[in-house]
Amino acid sequence: MINPLDRYELLTDLYELTMAASYFENGMAEQSTFSLFIRNYPNGRSFFVAAGLEQFLDYAAGFQFSESDLTYLDRTGLFSDDFLDYLKAVRFTGSVYALAEGEIFFKDEPVLEVTAPIIEAQILETFAINTMNLQSMIATKAARCVHAADGRRLVDFSLRRTHGIDAGLKVARSSYIAGFVATSNVLAGKLYGIPISGTMAHSYVTSFEDETEAFRTFARSFPQKTILLIDTYDTVEGAHKAAKVGDEMGKHGDKLLGVRLDSGDMTLLSQEVRHVLDEEGLSDVEIFASSGFDEYKIARTVKDGARIDAFGVGTKMGVSADAPYFDMAYKLVQYGERPIMKVSTGKANLPGKKQVFRKTDHKGRFLEDVICIRNETVEAARPLLEPVIEDGKLLRKHPSMDEIRQRFRKNFAALDDRYKALDGAHSYPVKLSARLKALQEASSALTV
Amino acid sequence: MINPLDRYELLTDLYELTMAASYFENGMAEQSTFSLFIRNYPNGRSFFVAAGLEQFLDYAAGFQFSESDLTYLDRTGLFSDDFLDYLKAVRFTGSVYALAEGEIFFKDEPVLEVTAPIIEAQILETFAINTMNLQSMIATKAARCVHAADGRRLVDFSLRRTHGIDAGLKVARSSYIAGFVATSNVLAGKLYGIPISGTMAHSYVTSFEDETEAFRTFARSFPQKTILLIDTYDTVEGAHKAAKVGDEMGKHGDKLLGVRLDSGDMTLLSQEVRHVLDEEGLSDVEIFASSGFDEYKIARTVKDGARIDAFGVGTKMGVSADAPYFDMAYKLVQYGERPIMKVSTGKANLPGKKQVFRKTDHKGRFLEDVICIRNETVEAARPLLEPVIEDGKLLRKHPSMDEIRQRFRKNFAALDDRYKALDGAHSYPVKLSARLKALQEASSALTV
Repeated sequence: MINPLDRYELLTDLYELTMAASYFENGMAEQSTFSLFIRNYPNGRSFFVAAGLEQFLDYAAGFQFSESDLTYLDRTGLFSDDFLDYLKAVRFTGSVYALAEGEIFFKDEPVLEVTAPIIEAQILETFAINTMNLQSMIATKAARCVHAADGRRLVDFSLRRTHGIDAGLKVARSSYIAGFVATSNVLAGKLYGIPISGTMAHSYVTSFEDETEAFRTFARSFPQKTILLIDTYDTVEGAHKAAKVGDEMGKHGDKLLGVRLDSGDMTLLSQEVRHVLDEEGLSDVEIFASSGFDEYKIARTVKDGARIDAFGVGTKMGVSADAPYFDMAYKLVQYGERPIMKVSTGKANLPGKKQVFRKTDHKGRFLEDVICIRNETVEAARPLLEPVIEDGKLLRKHPSMDEIRQRFRKNFAALDDRYKALDGAHSYPVKLSARLKALQEASSALTV
Repeated sequence: MINPLDRYELLTDLYELTMAASYFENGMAEQSTFSLFIRNYPNGRSFFVAAGLEQFLDYAAGFQFSESDLTYLDRTGLFSDDFLDYLKAVRFTGSVYALAEGEIFFKDEPVLEVTAPIIEAQILETFAINTMNLQSMIATKAARCVHAADGRRLVDFSLRRTHGIDAGLKVARSSYIAGFVATSNVLAGKLYGIPISGTMAHSYVTSFEDETEAFRTFARSFPQKTILLIDTYDTVEGAHKAAKVGDEMGKHGDKLLGVRLDSGDMTLLSQEVRHVLDEEGLSDVEIFASSGFDEYKIARTVKDGARIDAFGVGTKMGVSADAPYFDMAYKLVQYGERPIMKVSTGKANLPGKKQVFRKTDHKGRFLEDVICIRNETVEAARPLLEPVIEDGKLLRKHPSMDEIRQRFRKNFAALDDRYKALDGAHSYPVKLSARLKALQEASSALTV
């Protein structure tokens, strides 16, 4: 949520409400299970990072239409008074099984399964996909960047080109989950406790007639926190001027933290700038780089021997530019006692309530996953879906950002590097249990 | 804004505040002008549609840090008490020239120019780009879809895969500006008065054991508003079942509005389904289609002779999938009396306060644009940038959605079709005035 006082019950597709009205009028209130999963690996992906659960759980547990929502719905002329009275009283009374934030998952694996009377479970669809798709997509993109950076620090610079306000916040949160160390987004710092980062733009430099004077003035304002942007005119000349100011700062007992490159050939320039700084005895002044970085450009730059200590990663991460949506779906998999499978072209789902088990070796490294029927067990394997809501109530406090970050770090380290390759060439093994396969075949026979 | 009570002063990059602190401490308060523009045509684009101004103007005119914002900033340890006192009191006191929403514009043309003491003008950067980039990008994508659909109706179905809550709302708004007729997003209907649309999902159909029974039950709930989703099992069989239910509805004096296809070969299936419906005397039952539509798929489907009356356009429009960000920048172009040009590689800007004039023929069709210095005039041409804020105050009420839609429709009709080609092969002529060119050369000499 952006503001805990804001409620988004109407942030839903109209059909959730028209279907609900029809279920209501026909007395259809069977317990139903919906499953949230991703159908395919988009562009180079071969794993996903779960993120967004906290926002979904708050939404589900607090679900309640406001008076003004109901007034609006009444005015549409689509709904009966009886149904509007029902909506006024409706709360989420069901249960949710989910993957914790920071877990790794793979295609076809349920991230979330909701069981409730069909209206309650159905009505969560739009918000569930909206929040889980965005955050898992960004956490996945950010994890790829972290892998490519091979230990170098990454900072989220994407706010200006994220898709709106909420995306700006959720991108900061999701990239932090996946190992970014800070964000430029001040509100994300305030709301989530993420470290914030940033110093100056080109406009700062150009507002002075002289570049050195700009550097000197900024250093006076932030004697311990200055990172100088050196590419406004000529990067290497900028480095010489920065070195001069860094030297002056040293004489005052201050400390220049770093310089930032924001255009041109990053490998070549970073090497030249490193040389300039080292020559001036500023070998502990770091080099930051921004400008169009994503996992591919980071990997290339690192491979080419760039001397970059930290990357500002902006637009392409913040919009997941090479895969700006995942094929995430929320599908009815059980209605009453009946397992459900939709079979239309390319849109099949796995029927029934499920669980995912992960097998690991003696060092905890991932070996393979098995998707099962919910009440199955797989020996020597960890079940990934946990109960998080029961009878409409949250079962636990949300984990802290630090806990989520640690969970991600541990899991990501346990995933073999070949599954992190940027071209997604290797598929992690995910099997279906014999019982789930049998159910799938039985359901398929039933519905075709 | 999502909620008019929410304020987003901290939704900004940290460097806006560190620069502000440095300007403040050095007494730098010159009137400065920043210009917002797009540097390049992304992927196939050759025009842009202006959208997002209303949200920017509300932000600028209401700019004011809250106590809790200031408390957070204080805790970062980055800022002096004097500067925090300044932030507490700061309001936007400057002026804004802008293109009205619904206007067409081209690369390098300013969409917005802000003039104010440098801190006030600088601090608006992040929000300005965040809101204008998203909405202009979506309005542009939506306009391309509208052009491709050649008169067929388009409905926004993107909410579940837009990047978060705010994007869901802004996508509904921006696509409506560019000629979409409705949205599935109920909250956008409530907030913006956009017509809402939608009936059923596959889960509705699969919750019944029998498809015909599902159709019949829904039709009873919405005897005048039913659109049946017919691809859950087999689309052509689904069409026969829908025809049967449509026939039954007719006998009760009700009316089946349409059927929806959501998978498979849209051209072929729509032709077969049309045939089935026509055979059954249901030639006024419309065919809706959804599933992966964007301007390219719409154009192909229309060209191939699909019998589709309206399209549900979802994910690919809602995330602008083939161009999920624009290279929109907010650049300092004047500081005091000094015009500013940044010259780093690929990131130049046009110096000084500007105006854009549009020349049209006797029928109002666009001929060419001329970017000028602000106080120039071009004969027989219309100035596009209007004063919208003066001394920090809004100069007029926001135009209604209908006014904006009409402005777009009129402008888009006046743009020659060759500039609407989906491959962006033709560039609309945009010139610089002689005086602007001279200023550009003088500034370049100054800053290199």
